[in-house]
Amino acid sequence: MPKILRINTKERTFRYEEPGKYAGLGGRNLTSRMVLDEVPADTHALSADNKIVAAIGLLSGTAAANSGRISLGAKSPLTGTIKESNSGGTFCQKLARLDILAMVLEDKPEADAPFCNIIITKDGVQFVDAADMVGKGTYESMDMIAGQYGKKASGMIIGPAGEACLTGASIQFSDPWGRTARAAGRGGLGAVMGSKKVKAVVLDDTGGERFTYADPEKFKAASKRWAEILRAHPVTGQGLPGFGTAILVNIINEAGAFPTKNFREGRCDHVAGISGETIAEFISKRGGKTKEGCHAGCLIQCSQNYVDEKGEYLTSGFEYETVWAFGGNALIKDIDQIAKLDRLCDDLGVDTIEIGNTVAIAMDGGVIPWGDGEAAYELVNRIRDKKDHLGKIIGNGVGFTAQAFGVTRVPTVKNQSMPAYDPRAAKGVGVTYATTTQGADHTAGYAICQNMLKVGGDVNPLGKEGQVETSKALQIATATVDSLGLCLFVAFAVLDTADAVQCICDMVSARHGIEFTPDDFGALGIATLKDEISFNTAAGFTAADDQLPAFMMKEKLNPHGVVWDFSVEELQAAKVQ
Amino acid sequence: MPKILRINTKERTFRYEEPGKYAGLGGRNLTSRMVLDEVPADTHALSADNKIVAAIGLLSGTAAANSGRISLGAKSPLTGTIKESNSGGTFCQKLARLDILAMVLEDKPEADAPFCNIIITKDGVQFVDAADMVGKGTYESMDMIAGQYGKKASGMIIGPAGEACLTGASIQFSDPWGRTARAAGRGGLGAVMGSKKVKAVVLDDTGGERFTYADPEKFKAASKRWAEILRAHPVTGQGLPGFGTAILVNIINEAGAFPTKNFREGRCDHVAGISGETIAEFISKRGGKTKEGCHAGCLIQCSQNYVDEKGEYLTSGFEYETVWAFGGNALIKDIDQIAKLDRLCDDLGVDTIEIGNTVAIAMDGGVIPWGDGEAAYELVNRIRDKKDHLGKIIGNGVGFTAQAFGVTRVPTVKNQSMPAYDPRAAKGVGVTYATTTQGADHTAGYAICQNMLKVGGDVNPLGKEGQVETSKALQIATATVDSLGLCLFVAFAVLDTADAVQCICDMVSARHGIEFTPDDFGALGIATLKDEISFNTAAGFTAADDQLPAFMMKEKLNPHGVVWDFSVEELQAAKVQ
Repeated sequence: MPKILRINTKERTFRYEEPGKYAGLGGRNLTSRMVLDEVPADTHALSADNKIVAAIGLLSGTAAANSGRISLGAKSPLTGTIKESNSGGTFCQKLARLDILAMVLEDKPEADAPFCNIIITKDGVQFVDAADMVGKGTYESMDMIAGQYGKKASGMIIGPAGEACLTGASIQFSDPWGRTARAAGRGGLGAVMGSKKVKAVVLDDTGGERFTYADPEKFKAASKRWAEILRAHPVTGQGLPGFGTAILVNIINEAGAFPTKNFREGRCDHVAGISGETIAEFISKRGGKTKEGCHAGCLIQCSQNYVDEKGEYLTSGFEYETVWAFGGNALIKDIDQIAKLDRLCDDLGVDTIEIGNTVAIAMDGGVIPWGDGEAAYELVNRIRDKKDHLGKIIGNGVGFTAQAFGVTRVPTVKNQSMPAYDPRAAKGVGVTYATTTQGADHTAGYAICQNMLKVGGDVNPLGKEGQVETSKALQIATATVDSLGLCLFVAFAVLDTADAVQCICDMVSARHGIEFTPDDFGALGIATLKDEISFNTAAGFTAADDQLPAFMMKEKLNPHGVVWDFSVEELQAAKVQ
Repeated sequence: MPKILRINTKERTFRYEEPGKYAGLGGRNLTSRMVLDEVPADTHALSADNKIVAAIGLLSGTAAANSGRISLGAKSPLTGTIKESNSGGTFCQKLARLDILAMVLEDKPEADAPFCNIIITKDGVQFVDAADMVGKGTYESMDMIAGQYGKKASGMIIGPAGEACLTGASIQFSDPWGRTARAAGRGGLGAVMGSKKVKAVVLDDTGGERFTYADPEKFKAASKRWAEILRAHPVTGQGLPGFGTAILVNIINEAGAFPTKNFREGRCDHVAGISGETIAEFISKRGGKTKEGCHAGCLIQCSQNYVDEKGEYLTSGFEYETVWAFGGNALIKDIDQIAKLDRLCDDLGVDTIEIGNTVAIAMDGGVIPWGDGEAAYELVNRIRDKKDHLGKIIGNGVGFTAQAFGVTRVPTVKNQSMPAYDPRAAKGVGVTYATTTQGADHTAGYAICQNMLKVGGDVNPLGKEGQVETSKALQIATATVDSLGLCLFVAFAVLDTADAVQCICDMVSARHGIEFTPDDFGALGIATLKDEISFNTAAGFTAADDQLPAFMMKEKLNPHGVVWDFSVEELQAAKVQ
């Protein structure tokens, strides 16, 4: 049975535990439960009392397609809430292969203690001084890791931003090619890892063994059907593989919900130059790859190998939200410039959504000119110099930068910046931003499906009707998906396919030798959200915090001339009780 | 009857209004009521929807001793709560002489609009371009005002910090000698004034008339007794006039509640060099003045004219909390250096408590060495350059600076930094820090009286017994005192003198022609607190926010080895229902 591996970062000790009361849990359900149980809600997120829990999902390590998401849990230094941030890459499957259900980073050394790397193999844990890597970007650091531990080693790693404990810091994960292009981006978890003086956790699963299935035949049948479901749906089978997530640029802009110039307009003039179609064309012409999976067994292949004009690798995991943040919200027109910014963010270890929005705030505050991609690159790159004070401001994200420069239009919920969908013109996702346990986060309940893509239903994005119910149902389903270790993009197919939930349940049942029903599927998400709400309540969050910033209730968003018009009371119905 | 003067800072228009429903209110009771009524609780504190209300107290403008405190109300950009911050100086009495009950600064111009000065005379309001004053310190600006409007003009003024909308910014007020040494320091109200592009409000009360009393003889008798009460009490009659508030340095240090090195110890080795006794000796030797009042009719005379080695004026209103913040918490030993920092803070327009604590945080984060007064001066002075990014960090106070530099021991409540009394060893004031509507604030319920000075009772500072009740009673009484326009220091005498409350009630009754009883005295404070709690609740604050930082519950404070041990539930009893 998989173990819990507890690592004390102060003492540099470790121990394996039987899962005990955590047996049978996985992914977000497990990380949120452990954070609720073990992290005092009122503690400072960078104190020794905070922990980082990294857990595999209920289906992780199996042959089920798209089951390789690693779930991270902690108290967020950005939002003050509980935080679950999950990522692709190779880490989750290797953790499973090492028979580890969850790895927990605990305690912390003194602030002036040296950084270390933590190397996990089937034989145990080693702590290795990381002095030669400190200050380096994640790409170069990962190259050094590959040099030391082989190309198949997997890294969970922070950049200079995490080392400096900046609240915009991500934790990056390596993909199958050793590129640190995958991120647990949101909520500043990189700062928590930095406070624990851990530069990287490296997994070498040599000699690890795939576990057995409780019912191999049943699993095989179900997972075969699962693959068919994903291949058959137009979004997971064609749209995402063809153009990546940036296919949304034109769609969301057309819908008038593409936040432009720090959420001043719903449409942007220059989207043609930064659309998914344009990106795919660039990549093909230059000899890159338009589809790649971030972990073994991925059928959706939404990633890519974005190459520069010379045909050399520039970035990967180049998401719609990143293209939007720099391209739409900060008005940068040059897609190569945006791709360079994406690479820079991954290398520094910062969240592209938080930092892209921060660049827009800096432009709003007169720090650099609107739309100036070169200046934006220089500005973000100041984070690399840990002594640079402007770098510290930018690296701490939207709320912090807005305060530094007196900007009052601050598109955040619980101090986390909003992603690429203006909530005034996509109200279902606005309900999610307001009410999720995570701060503004589209992935927590992606009502763009029903509001714009007509997947899983059809709800008018500009009206109020049906939005709260839609968001609530999605928040529950998402918490389940995140607990299974599945990639959220499977949801497009699941929402539109009658037997998909049963098929997932069959896989869980066959893997664990239990009877996992569609009722259990829903209950898993609800239990997870309840734990998260309990933590946030203890940390002092209330209904009044579940609301969008006041300016969105007053300023009309063009082209539809819409404002945000949900009351706190109406929004509460989106939360599980 | 006094009017309400509303000034639109965007349109540069003004109008006088009858007080209407605000007739009969004054001071904090009035400012908090107006903020509750007129400022949306969820608005950004630097948005056009915020207002600054400046109101005279119920006894202001009368001959009652120590009745010249001006009360400012607004939503705080530092805490997000409602904020009442009051100040001495000449402003209040001149506002009364101009027959203005409250002046309200409303709306705001565009961020790139020019600053103006607002000149109020008996004939109305003028808006004068302030370009020549922008960027200048409050001392030099006030000299320019005196040059233009005469030496008797009174100023309410911001420095570079307020202009830059930094949340550590104060609003400074001029004293009878035209020195901007008086401050509404806490809560960042200078940033609100800066967002409205007002550099100074100048009062010229030439031709203004003193109002009549409803019952002149009764007022005369009561105010005579009032003066006797203040003169007779050892604190108001001898301690404060003799040594100023810095007389507390030795007392609080001896009690082991003098926060040292960012709240790590309760005693400081070098207090002998920075004590009130030492300061008085220095001043006397150099030919300064050890007692001065900040407004006409002050009998307590806690202020001073602190002169440098050449006998030239350096600073005034040099408070215990300032001496402590730089001297104890930041370990600066040289009292002249601390006096220079006090002057610098007044000149830049920043709160000495917030910025003194911020210097300690910067030392904790390795930005400058512990105890280095020269480096501290240079650091704080960076606020003067509005383009300096480190200056922006420091000027935004303790919470902001701690986040920038990854410091996790953050002594704040609701993001406002704690003053000069460690709550672990002075638990009554800890209850106040936690539960007041204002964020950590000693003046909101100064239980040091009962905990250490044995004024108004005797409650063991290290125990829990009696603290909640003591703090609650003080919070109510303080809200009343702040509503009357009285200096809080009268409380020492009031708490110890049987007929003091009746005497105050007689003055209020005789001034306004009403029957104001000791019951009304208590009810006034309760009503004020209820309004403030209503605002904070609407802004999203709950019981969970009414608590001290978690590190104080774990780290023992020497010499007594005490921790903070009140639960959220216990603390709620300190709040009015």
